[in-house]
Amino acid sequence: MSIKDQWIKTIHELQDSICASLEKCDGKGKFIEESWQRDGGGGGKTRVISNGDVFEKGGVNTSVVYGNVSDTMRKELAIDGVKWFACGLSLVIHPGNPFLPTVHCNYRMFELYNDQDEATDRWFGGGTDLTPYYLIDEDARHFHRTYKDVCDRFDPDFYPAFKNECDEYFVNEHRNRERRGIGGIFYDHQKPDIVKDVNFWINFSKSCGEAFVNAYLPIVEKRRNRPFTESNKVWQEIRRGRYVEFNLLHDRGTIFGLKTNGRTESILMSLPPTVRFEYNHQPQAGSDEDKLLQVCLKPVNWI
Amino acid sequence: MSIKDQWIKTIHELQDSICASLEKCDGKGKFIEESWQRDGGGGGKTRVISNGDVFEKGGVNTSVVYGNVSDTMRKELAIDGVKWFACGLSLVIHPGNPFLPTVHCNYRMFELYNDQDEATDRWFGGGTDLTPYYLIDEDARHFHRTYKDVCDRFDPDFYPAFKNECDEYFVNEHRNRERRGIGGIFYDHQKPDIVKDVNFWINFSKSCGEAFVNAYLPIVEKRRNRPFTESNKVWQEIRRGRYVEFNLLHDRGTIFGLKTNGRTESILMSLPPTVRFEYNHQPQAGSDEDKLLQVCLKPVNWI
Repeated sequence: MSIKDQWIKTIHELQDSICASLEKCDGKGKFIEESWQRDGGGGGKTRVISNGDVFEKGGVNTSVVYGNVSDTMRKELAIDGVKWFACGLSLVIHPGNPFLPTVHCNYRMFELYNDQDEATDRWFGGGTDLTPYYLIDEDARHFHRTYKDVCDRFDPDFYPAFKNECDEYFVNEHRNRERRGIGGIFYDHQKPDIVKDVNFWINFSKSCGEAFVNAYLPIVEKRRNRPFTESNKVWQEIRRGRYVEFNLLHDRGTIFGLKTNGRTESILMSLPPTVRFEYNHQPQAGSDEDKLLQVCLKPVNWI
Repeated sequence: MSIKDQWIKTIHELQDSICASLEKCDGKGKFIEESWQRDGGGGGKTRVISNGDVFEKGGVNTSVVYGNVSDTMRKELAIDGVKWFACGLSLVIHPGNPFLPTVHCNYRMFELYNDQDEATDRWFGGGTDLTPYYLIDEDARHFHRTYKDVCDRFDPDFYPAFKNECDEYFVNEHRNRERRGIGGIFYDHQKPDIVKDVNFWINFSKSCGEAFVNAYLPIVEKRRNRPFTESNKVWQEIRRGRYVEFNLLHDRGTIFGLKTNGRTESILMSLPPTVRFEYNHQPQAGSDEDKLLQVCLKPVNWI
């Protein structure tokens, strides 16, 4: 099997197993699939869940897209080459209950080709990060611990490096470097070499993708029935506004997708279902809302 | 009085008169002012209204900002020169009732200087555009007619040119070139010359700013008590999502502000108070919601 085909198989298996686990957990919501074709090459399978018992909105998408490197890509995305190929899994889950965190995963491979159709460059990227609305230390530790354990099986240097990369990536620069959540792991532009070859990176990405269910669903099970007030919901919707700001102003994946004629509805499924933008909202010092804000402003080591 | 000072006086007078008219119309909401200083030079006066009888959220802001041209500005905003100065009025009003349109105005002057502090370039830009959630032809015609009348007093070529520029600017490129609303007028990079000198552009901008009250408030008075359903509100919030997408992905003013260390809360006061992002929402063909969508996809001549 070619490298491409191995990777395509990996992300589709992940999509199936993750959707099955999320549906089982929700108990009511079902994923609806839409397949789409991309003008210029490739397409994807978008699976969306909405108004579930737990999950208010979410998507678990795969896409396998390719095309000629355009002037826009060269200029705005600094991509060099004649043809490109990208294939990945991307998921975002927004639960209704403000005590349940939003979660995001993305695992992808990118290739560039010269005018002889030879692959001249290839890299892997990915990560999983958590966006709580209220900080529950035990949950934060569980999430980070799960990903540290996966990383440690591959390289003890990975977790500290990728945890830090995550804290430096999901940042609202325009808000005094406020993070959108409490991070997790993030890595990008990982090019296979003799020691860490293509198989290594496929296995690592696959293991990270498989770990999602264990990292996230135990938190959902523990907190899904926790009662919440109208004011908890308002705070969740304000923080969801920051999620929107990050995704539309800063997120490379969103901007890459929109600049390369990706399917808009599949890309923007990441946006939360209901959102508030209040002028200059500041939580009261020392409140639970403020505690969350403080760890977003200053990331914490959870292990 | 220097050109700068004339312009600064103009926008502050506009800010005062517009805020007074909006407060009088609302009857309950009051603007709250916050003055701010910008690191690097200048500052502004932000005036925000919220939870009024009519206006759910709105801001009428002025800013007078300046500084050294940074590498980011040179690279990302294609600005050439040693120092820059920008001064403008910017307003966005989001009424609560879905039968009342959102409205936006911006009138600004920009200057560039060489290392001798001599102005080497100067231009004016501005416009006023309407974003209804339901199309009421009479209101659309009134709004466009008001601005055509102002334009015609200055140059009969202005209205058709600036109406078209507006339709080509407030576009969600990533959504099949859907406009955020039904437009109005928009002009940019208007450099004074012998025929249309600085005074001409100051007077034109001032007249456009003054016309806002007559263009918008009669619509508010006519529709403010129109009853609406939960489903009207949901549609409004979905369309407000498109407003967010335009402002964060495409709007040059927002991106300029955030890239030049503008005050984030003042820039993002433009975002609507409550918003929904639903996956692949499509209004029913022939419905009132669809009628609005169709004019956003294909702008109409209202005169």
